[in-house]
Amino acid sequence: MNEVKVFCPATIANISCGFDVLGVALDAVGDEMVVRKTKEKGIRITKIEGQDLPMQAEKNVAGVAGLAFLDASEYEGGFEIEINKKIKPGSGIGSSAASSAGAVWAMNHLLGSPFTPTKLVTFAMEGERLASEVAHADNVAPALFGNFTLIRSYTPLDIVPITAPQELYATVIHPQIEVKTSDSRKILRTTISMETAIKQWGNVGGLVAGLLKEDYELIGRSLVDHIVEPIRSILIPGFDQVKQASINAGALGCGISGSGPSIFAFSKGEKTAINIGNEMKRVYETIGIDYDIHVSKINQQGIKIL
Amino acid sequence: MNEVKVFCPATIANISCGFDVLGVALDAVGDEMVVRKTKEKGIRITKIEGQDLPMQAEKNVAGVAGLAFLDASEYEGGFEIEINKKIKPGSGIGSSAASSAGAVWAMNHLLGSPFTPTKLVTFAMEGERLASEVAHADNVAPALFGNFTLIRSYTPLDIVPITAPQELYATVIHPQIEVKTSDSRKILRTTISMETAIKQWGNVGGLVAGLLKEDYELIGRSLVDHIVEPIRSILIPGFDQVKQASINAGALGCGISGSGPSIFAFSKGEKTAINIGNEMKRVYETIGIDYDIHVSKINQQGIKIL
Repeated sequence: MNEVKVFCPATIANISCGFDVLGVALDAVGDEMVVRKTKEKGIRITKIEGQDLPMQAEKNVAGVAGLAFLDASEYEGGFEIEINKKIKPGSGIGSSAASSAGAVWAMNHLLGSPFTPTKLVTFAMEGERLASEVAHADNVAPALFGNFTLIRSYTPLDIVPITAPQELYATVIHPQIEVKTSDSRKILRTTISMETAIKQWGNVGGLVAGLLKEDYELIGRSLVDHIVEPIRSILIPGFDQVKQASINAGALGCGISGSGPSIFAFSKGEKTAINIGNEMKRVYETIGIDYDIHVSKINQQGIKIL
Repeated sequence: MNEVKVFCPATIANISCGFDVLGVALDAVGDEMVVRKTKEKGIRITKIEGQDLPMQAEKNVAGVAGLAFLDASEYEGGFEIEINKKIKPGSGIGSSAASSAGAVWAMNHLLGSPFTPTKLVTFAMEGERLASEVAHADNVAPALFGNFTLIRSYTPLDIVPITAPQELYATVIHPQIEVKTSDSRKILRTTISMETAIKQWGNVGGLVAGLLKEDYELIGRSLVDHIVEPIRSILIPGFDQVKQASINAGALGCGISGSGPSIFAFSKGEKTAINIGNEMKRVYETIGIDYDIHVSKINQQGIKIL
């Protein structure tokens, strides 16, 4: 096989209490990429549709991830990459992660899977480093593994796959405002009270248990963030109203996706997820901010061949 | 039924990363109590064996927990309590919790179970308040529910039962030195770095996932405490040697039980648990400190009728 076309899912990271450790992959929105083996060494981005992004491999997240892959590989050739960018950069649903993860997953597939998924995460993290100066794994891991993933540790990298209950849905609204990851990181505190930290890790334990025990109510009770959301939500106009409207419409919980500005809600069943979406829309229509909305089942397999 | 005799398990709280939220019940060590209905109102402690503890209900943890129970109950009579104290007070394996939990569980049983287990936890917490000035739930919850429990939240009290894998064993050594819970709380920091907190909640998520997925290796990798153990272990002579010896003998992980001085190790299978016990003993024999040792399967049901 010399060419493969893949779907690279959008992802929600920083899931409420799970700041920097918990992410989840979506099914309804993602980039499409074509990756092709070439005799010529190196990575060439040959086509980018949907967004105006750098074509030079060293300046493109998929290119940088691909170069990290090539650097570790014994393969003597190179790859061409075409990107149909369907996830808007800066939306907070893992736009850079999808392209980075998609590139290395497709390359690995074309070479007969010499690398483990965890190793692919480390290559894709180089794309994240280019995008946000931090080589975080909480978007690329769920993009590659599917479902929920827990980054238990970075040194060494330890990724724990966590299967979502079958009826869990995500609704995500992306208000068309700009919040830079680097800015939203700067406003966070570097120390927190022990008391607050204990509450947070109680909720992380509850959320992981809720997902694995398929206890929707427990998932909902655990979707609480005492640390980051109270600060970052200030940067997102309408956040409190969207959250309240989502809960009123039956959401299990609601929080900031990644570093924002997208807002996610989880729910049991598609009907509730659609209702939540309608209520979220109403908030931004009232305020007068444009938005994209995604209603999605949890992605079970990560990147997939189209 | 007018009388019941119960086994009240010892418990390990503050399980490494799970400070203040995770506890587990043991099978091999616990108090025995006889609780009897009386026409006379109030609580009378009629016999205490094994330890020299207050007989006056208001000064005894089982008495105080029992009074909280009576206060909430419509029952017009009272109870007599006999305690055969097999868990040493101050050992760090939930001595006060066992008696507090045992008293209210037995009373509830004698009255046809008018209260939920969670409600019983709130009564038993009053015994904990008497013992250590803090009404913590992380020992009384596993004593009442059995297995592992996560205290997701105190307000409202939300207890998440977490079933342990069948072959999980605990080895606990109690060096005969005194560490007061109140002292060991005072030396803790009241603020922590965000970076350390993130590592800690990554491990809490990993530990909960490891238990529910029956992934012993993941349990082991997650039994890490970046916050409390480095400080409290200073109060426990031989801690580092015991930990190293346990890991060398095949322990999945090792940490401080409660606020010490007991040290626990988890392992897969009884044989490894016994070996770990032998290596732990050797450390304290070399140092010249007396000890008690317990090798125990995880308790599956909490308090049980004898």
